[in-house]
Amino acid sequence: MSTREDGRADDELRTITITRGFTSHPAGSVLVEFGNTRVMCTASVEQGVPRWRKGSGLGWLTAEYAMLPGATHTRNSRESVKGKVSGRTQEISRLVGRSLRACIDLAAIGENTIALDCDVLQADGGTRTAAITGAFVALSDAVTFLRAHNRLADPQPISCAIAAVSVGVVDGRVRLDLPYEEDSRAEVDMNIVATDTGTLVEVQGTAEGATFSRSTLDKMMDSALAGCEQLFEVQRAALAQPYPGVLPGA
Amino acid sequence: MSTREDGRADDELRTITITRGFTSHPAGSVLVEFGNTRVMCTASVEQGVPRWRKGSGLGWLTAEYAMLPGATHTRNSRESVKGKVSGRTQEISRLVGRSLRACIDLAAIGENTIALDCDVLQADGGTRTAAITGAFVALSDAVTFLRAHNRLADPQPISCAIAAVSVGVVDGRVRLDLPYEEDSRAEVDMNIVATDTGTLVEVQGTAEGATFSRSTLDKMMDSALAGCEQLFEVQRAALAQPYPGVLPGA
Amino acid sequence: MSTREDGRADDELRTITITRGFTSHPAGSVLVEFGNTRVMCTASVEQGVPRWRKGSGLGWLTAEYAMLPGATHTRNSRESVKGKVSGRTQEISRLVGRSLRACIDLAAIGENTIALDCDVLQADGGTRTAAITGAFVALSDAVTFLRAHNRLADPQPISCAIAAVSVGVVDGRVRLDLPYEEDSRAEVDMNIVATDTGTLVEVQGTAEGATFSRSTLDKMMDSALAGCEQLFEVQRAALAQPYPGVLPGA
Amino acid sequence: MSTREDGRADDELRTITITRGFTSHPAGSVLVEFGNTRVMCTASVEQGVPRWRKGSGLGWLTAEYAMLPGATHTRNSRESVKGKVSGRTQEISRLVGRSLRACIDLAAIGENTIALDCDVLQADGGTRTAAITGAFVALSDAVTFLRAHNRLADPQPISCAIAAVSVGVVDGRVRLDLPYEEDSRAEVDMNIVATDTGTLVEVQGTAEGATFSRSTLDKMMDSALAGCEQLFEVQRAALAQPYPGVLPGA
Amino acid sequence: MSTREDGRADDELRTITITRGFTSHPAGSVLVEFGNTRVMCTASVEQGVPRWRKGSGLGWLTAEYAMLPGATHTRNSRESVKGKVSGRTQEISRLVGRSLRACIDLAAIGENTIALDCDVLQADGGTRTAAITGAFVALSDAVTFLRAHNRLADPQPISCAIAAVSVGVVDGRVRLDLPYEEDSRAEVDMNIVATDTGTLVEVQGTAEGATFSRSTLDKMMDSALAGCEQLFEVQRAALAQPYPGVLPGA
Amino acid sequence: MSTREDGRADDELRTITITRGFTSHPAGSVLVEFGNTRVMCTASVEQGVPRWRKGSGLGWLTAEYAMLPGATHTRNSRESVKGKVSGRTQEISRLVGRSLRACIDLAAIGENTIALDCDVLQADGGTRTAAITGAFVALSDAVTFLRAHNRLADPQPISCAIAAVSVGVVDGRVRLDLPYEEDSRAEVDMNIVATDTGTLVEVQGTAEGATFSRSTLDKMMDSALAGCEQLFEVQRAALAQPYPGVLPGA
Repeated sequence: MSTREDGRADDELRTITITRGFTSHPAGSVLVEFGNTRVMCTASVEQGVPRWRKGSGLGWLTAEYAMLPGATHTRNSRESVKGKVSGRTQEISRLVGRSLRACIDLAAIGENTIALDCDVLQADGGTRTAAITGAFVALSDAVTFLRAHNRLADPQPISCAIAAVSVGVVDGRVRLDLPYEEDSRAEVDMNIVATDTGTLVEVQGTAEGATFSRSTLDKMMDSALAGCEQLFEVQRAALAQPYPGVLPGA
Repeated sequence: MSTREDGRADDELRTITITRGFTSHPAGSVLVEFGNTRVMCTASVEQGVPRWRKGSGLGWLTAEYAMLPGATHTRNSRESVKGKVSGRTQEISRLVGRSLRACIDLAAIGENTIALDCDVLQADGGTRTAAITGAFVALSDAVTFLRAHNRLADPQPISCAIAAVSVGVVDGRVRLDLPYEEDSRAEVDMNIVATDTGTLVEVQGTAEGATFSRSTLDKMMDSALAGCEQLFEVQRAALAQPYPGVLPGA
Repeated sequence: MSTREDGRADDELRTITITRGFTSHPAGSVLVEFGNTRVMCTASVEQGVPRWRKGSGLGWLTAEYAMLPGATHTRNSRESVKGKVSGRTQEISRLVGRSLRACIDLAAIGENTIALDCDVLQADGGTRTAAITGAFVALSDAVTFLRAHNRLADPQPISCAIAAVSVGVVDGRVRLDLPYEEDSRAEVDMNIVATDTGTLVEVQGTAEGATFSRSTLDKMMDSALAGCEQLFEVQRAALAQPYPGVLPGA
Repeated sequence: MSTREDGRADDELRTITITRGFTSHPAGSVLVEFGNTRVMCTASVEQGVPRWRKGSGLGWLTAEYAMLPGATHTRNSRESVKGKVSGRTQEISRLVGRSLRACIDLAAIGENTIALDCDVLQADGGTRTAAITGAFVALSDAVTFLRAHNRLADPQPISCAIAAVSVGVVDGRVRLDLPYEEDSRAEVDMNIVATDTGTLVEVQGTAEGATFSRSTLDKMMDSALAGCEQLFEVQRAALAQPYPGVLPGA
Repeated sequence: MSTREDGRADDELRTITITRGFTSHPAGSVLVEFGNTRVMCTASVEQGVPRWRKGSGLGWLTAEYAMLPGATHTRNSRESVKGKVSGRTQEISRLVGRSLRACIDLAAIGENTIALDCDVLQADGGTRTAAITGAFVALSDAVTFLRAHNRLADPQPISCAIAAVSVGVVDGRVRLDLPYEEDSRAEVDMNIVATDTGTLVEVQGTAEGATFSRSTLDKMMDSALAGCEQLFEVQRAALAQPYPGVLPGA
Repeated sequence: MSTREDGRADDELRTITITRGFTSHPAGSVLVEFGNTRVMCTASVEQGVPRWRKGSGLGWLTAEYAMLPGATHTRNSRESVKGKVSGRTQEISRLVGRSLRACIDLAAIGENTIALDCDVLQADGGTRTAAITGAFVALSDAVTFLRAHNRLADPQPISCAIAAVSVGVVDGRVRLDLPYEEDSRAEVDMNIVATDTGTLVEVQGTAEGATFSRSTLDKMMDSALAGCEQLFEVQRAALAQPYPGVLPGA
């Protein structure tokens, strides 16, 4: 019998849904849902690269994460109005960008930039891991778009899939994919980003209140990696459908 | 035979859709669609009022409008990252706030603030008028929420409905509810905000390239006011459904 | 018998004064007075255009409006010190720029920028409309300066005069050219920008507290357009004098 | 025979004009002219003091200096739009505040703030010294205003007059009150602030290109102090006229 | 035979030095050196806590990390002058604060704040881990200071020591405590923060270019934890000396 | 018998120490100590010059002054975190840059920039004058570095030494080199910057509370110039040692 408020087993993911073609302007536009957490992930293709990269022949991939004001239980104030981006937001934006750059050969896209935007429409824990998982699908669609427009030097620039999940210690138990109710009182909070080739991209574990042992770290890794396997399944199923937009010659 | 690219008559609105309960945290959460323009409008209730209004016994209503980076054809850069809000964004935020304050008795809500957030998920012209039209429905839901929690001094603080529509001169013809394709080459661009009691809240007409005659102004007013009548119908139909969230005693 | 505090009839302008050559560095420098409202309007000619316009062969006209700290009854704090420009200031700056761009052929001035600065020395209502009315005269002088220096492709780049006036509903009556005392308690507040060829450039009407009927809109338009006719007379009289600065060959 | 471009002797001031009551809202409002340099100096009385001074029973005097965009030969960009105040502006604002605080007993004005605003309408060298000289007169009028409203603990809180002048080495000669043409190529540039009781408030001398000897410093001091004597005369003459605004019981 | 440029074995730390009493104003002031990396860590005690924590009876510990402009090979520009703190700086500041909060009972220090400042004087890789290791010693001294001034509710508020070290994969080998030369070309980069009771506070591993296997993660953990044991020794030796400042009754 | 708290005679400097090669990355790196005031002064050589100077063939020298948070008795908050540089900081940065530019021929260094950074590690009065005195030594080392790398057009671009000292009136007596305890209650506060050829670069005297006579100015000048003579001795002794870093061919 589960001790989790939503009835899940400790190692069970929430319902994961990935909707491609959520909006139509960007080359990739995905709505990803981890239970009640909903993130809109878009991948926009822009000509050119940042100044420091000009003339290198290499492309660039950048990411920005943000929370809509109405996404949280209590309204969170808008960072554009405050005039600066919080440390948390910057940290997550950097994490998303780093994670997705791990799967793509930037030489293959030439001097173009793929801008990933992950905007949280509704937050219920695990927004950054949902963002990464959804952004991979948006990125895949942007690559399909570039390929169809003959803008790729190498037709398969993506070397592996990327997914991410949270895991933590709550009520003394290792639990996967924490909703806000668990996340806010977790003793340990961890996010891992993995590839579908079995390797790791990023491991971030943080003690919240209590420190944790090496064996707890191991258990969290086991649970998170198993969770990622399921996420890769959902991504694959979503990407098995045809590109949701209009492509040349289509 | 229509001369508009999307086949509409000059005085015809696009398909208007209003979805209540689009997300679940805010007291009011609405997705409004004017054709391909999609705006998420939330109304959050916050205790207290801005400092300058404290002790007045009056509530406050504020609004913020923003465009998601992926909402436009070409990605628009994020204002939080640029560190400041553009003049256009501020202008529209002020317009939305002013327009909605015209329909509500702020004494009735006591020293509480209703924060309206209008975030454009997809832009295809007329985002500010869609935002106002949707925000009215979100506001109505927030008032229902306050009433159910016994936080209203007067149970009917809303005196009328508010809707808005764009109108303009394109190809020398007065046309209603301009999509981006028309808006971007309009000779005159106008937005009007009206009440369902037949009065005006805001009239903003701007010459773009060519100036316009008094009689053109009159024709634009006729078309826009007729359009608003239809918008009030759609609002009424949407609000005829029960409150989409959970209320005490419900 | 007038019911206005300053003894004017409802459709009467305040005393309007336009002083050219108010300062000597800018190509155009005008002090415009609408009663006690005093605005210094300068037009500076700068080589080059903003980056996005380079290589177009077209010039640019930009405008900035600001209020000196001592201009108002109670000192208003300095926006440079606060580190940001308020929404109101940006809105008015954009309005002034848009209004004046309506009268000038930017191809004729080549890749030069005319920067209009409207600094309110003393505020008593109607500062934005005074600014527009005065800026037109400063702009005319800047064009005279450019012509005398052989920097115009077309010697007559100005196609019409531009003037603006406020109108509103105060004490239930439509009144022209509101001073602060009326403006601060107006039920409806409207600004119109017109050309001396009888057309409109901008119409902005806002309900303040009470909404307004279509017939009130019509009455306000009548009054404002009549007011503009008188403003064009004052502009013409001022511009009938010789250029106040030193021109080559003069 | 003078070697100065404007025909003055080396130790001669430009024509100095002080106009009180230049605008009517602030308690003190002065236009000061040093030749073509024109600065509007206002003194506004505000209730209360900055947070760090609350409860001290002492008043405060603060100053802000700024340059209008059109004040200089080539338009200077607006600091509010740039979003920050330059080092030069801050330095001068601090100098003006410090200089004027030297003549007033802040205990006598109670917990009120006198805000001095010095806005340069036209710049031709020596704007900071003109600002200080004019601000003293505006401050005197603000004190008269406070006295007439019975807001002074001590009826004579001003202990001395304050004036300032620039001096420098140009073409190897010590010259007083440098216009822009001399200031921009001066080898040494100095500003002194003095009292009419013969003492010094501030001495700021800077080598520009060449360093300077102790004896040059002495000559510059002689010239500047003689210049200040004449400025005190002009201030006295201006203040001999009645207060330009309306006072209670007047 | 070592393959590292500086002759160290793969699992060998650089020379670690901790100097207490480096400056005299703060309650704790430490210079920590990891080879050529030198960080000044100060712990300042301030009365009061941030607004959101007032009235809780709990203290607060905050941390800020920064790099002096001359600390790096090529000068890095000053963040105060740029007007904003980079994502990297914020991320490290948050990490330092979180890490040190793991060892202290904030109830014991009452409503006081301990501000840790970690300023890098010279950077040669591993600045964040050196900062954490040094900050622990500065924090210990600040606690000694508070105890001597009878400002602690519990005389032993620190529950364990905190140290941190970097580890990574360079040239395909797991290496401890990377200098800049290795860090800049590492395939995997990891920082761990541990306690001297054998538990973990923070684990952050990032693939740079190549992803990494679970077994590599394990090897990095082994190496880093062994390194931390040595750091705890150096901390203990440093803290075995008397408090370097003046205490009451001393 | 001395009346100064630290036992010095009125015209006596504190112990002055100059340590070259304090850190190793910058071309010049100096720790300067005036008693307990300790400032790290680095001189970094950067290729290129600011945009406005490009193509002139001239180099540039710029300076930035800052205070570490832990440098003062009570922690001072970090300007990067506040997001802006205070007026005081900007004023001192400008003073340091101006002062050092007085001794160097910028044509001789070609289109390179020397960036001086003066970071106060511990503050006890006179930080700006210590910064200037130390920065001269760091600059000399940077010039040695440039000469050794054959990057100088003229091998001796430095024309004189630069030193600075504070002087003031405390307890009615003219005193040299004020520590914080005296500085904070000084009646007059003055900083002078001089050359070892007997000339002045900058003279800044400010009345704090009381104004001062011309003869007091003279006495302060005498004392400060005598103090500078001793500072030049300390600089010469420090620079008599070999360059502390590695130079080509050395």
